[in-house]
Amino acid sequence: MKTIGIIGGMGPLATADLYKKITVNTAADCDQEQLHIVIDSNSAIPDRTKHIIADGADPVPEMTKSIRRLEQCGADFLIMPCNTAHFFYDRLCQISSVPILNMLNATVDHIKATFGSGKTVGLLATDGTIQSGIYDTYLEKAGMTVVKPVKHQAKVMEFIYDGIKKNNLDIGIDGLMAAADEMSAMGADLFILGCTELSAATDYYRFDERFVDPLLVLAKKSIAEAGGRVR
Amino acid sequence: MKTIGIIGGMGPLATADLYKKITVNTAADCDQEQLHIVIDSNSAIPDRTKHIIADGADPVPEMTKSIRRLEQCGADFLIMPCNTAHFFYDRLCQISSVPILNMLNATVDHIKATFGSGKTVGLLATDGTIQSGIYDTYLEKAGMTVVKPVKHQAKVMEFIYDGIKKNNLDIGIDGLMAAADEMSAMGADLFILGCTELSAATDYYRFDERFVDPLLVLAKKSIAEAGGRVR
Repeated sequence: MKTIGIIGGMGPLATADLYKKITVNTAADCDQEQLHIVIDSNSAIPDRTKHIIADGADPVPEMTKSIRRLEQCGADFLIMPCNTAHFFYDRLCQISSVPILNMLNATVDHIKATFGSGKTVGLLATDGTIQSGIYDTYLEKAGMTVVKPVKHQAKVMEFIYDGIKKNNLDIGIDGLMAAADEMSAMGADLFILGCTELSAATDYYRFDERFVDPLLVLAKKSIAEAGGRVR
Repeated sequence: MKTIGIIGGMGPLATADLYKKITVNTAADCDQEQLHIVIDSNSAIPDRTKHIIADGADPVPEMTKSIRRLEQCGADFLIMPCNTAHFFYDRLCQISSVPILNMLNATVDHIKATFGSGKTVGLLATDGTIQSGIYDTYLEKAGMTVVKPVKHQAKVMEFIYDGIKKNNLDIGIDGLMAAADEMSAMGADLFILGCTELSAATDYYRFDERFVDPLLVLAKKSIAEAGGRVR
């Protein structure tokens, strides 16, 4: 069995959520049948979006320190529970001595396998992730069309910032669904929950099978890559 | 700020729960204001209870490997989110080059500070933890009296094994409360949620201030020890 290394802290709640998703989705009847996971929850990593869309510090040097620590601990491959961090994926692969599983590639592969090719994908994410264009790159390279909310993007932001980030679950998912309906009208066949707060929301609200959670996709892919069995 | 090292995987869900409790209880407005935490979720650590009450393998050699990895990552102190693992606390302190914060000592200190000294403490825990006598040692040394459910211990086990471990929240807390009521009649002033499944249950059910959660106590003590501010 391989050891999983998690470059964490971007943010820590998303990291905890991925760790929990790996644990509950591993077919294990006791602690000893779980996988060996090492997490470096590194709060010194600068804000990713601030570097991409403004003049914030480059996060790569601090992410490199996390990679070195995880390598030292015997990690056989690495993962990053942060959509935006994948903007730096190619640079990090040059730095790491072990492979880094790409959450966005895994999500694209999952979509192709589940929904078929040539689909139109609706993106639910923060303004920052949408502006960074990170998902567009991966989806368009795979021959998919990306659509984003226009009229209701503010409702997505409200759900993320006033709802999940504040632990205010009374907010409900009507606003998010309005954004999804808007994208359905644009031809979206499915939706990516492209923000770790939206991944976390799957613990509290029921989303139908059109909603794809990249953290869950990454959790299952990591279990298989480590030699474990997905429950 | 100090780096927190977590000897994890005993089990992984309790480890994820502690990591989340540290994160949400740290006064931080962004990822960069969180603490640096390194987790070794080591599934190779043998079952603690099986070694204490039967002839299972000694968990200390494998816990030692986790300690070495966390030391290498720069951990300034270590914590263990497992009640039973504290049975090995003195041996581990001999092995580790950095201090290990003791969750059970922290819980006893918290009880003294919050409820006063000389209290009668009711223990909610698995048969294994109760048989190991781990809490009795710490509480009696601090001059407290320990009581345990007799008539309703089976209901505590049912709540842990058929409820929380199976993610069956419909079970409700009536059974657990029957055990608490039984201990109240024996003079209990407060109750320790002495099993990490019971700590996890605090996410789903409301417990009044007589119920002490050792994982939460440890989370807050770790934040302070690391130089952070508790929210």
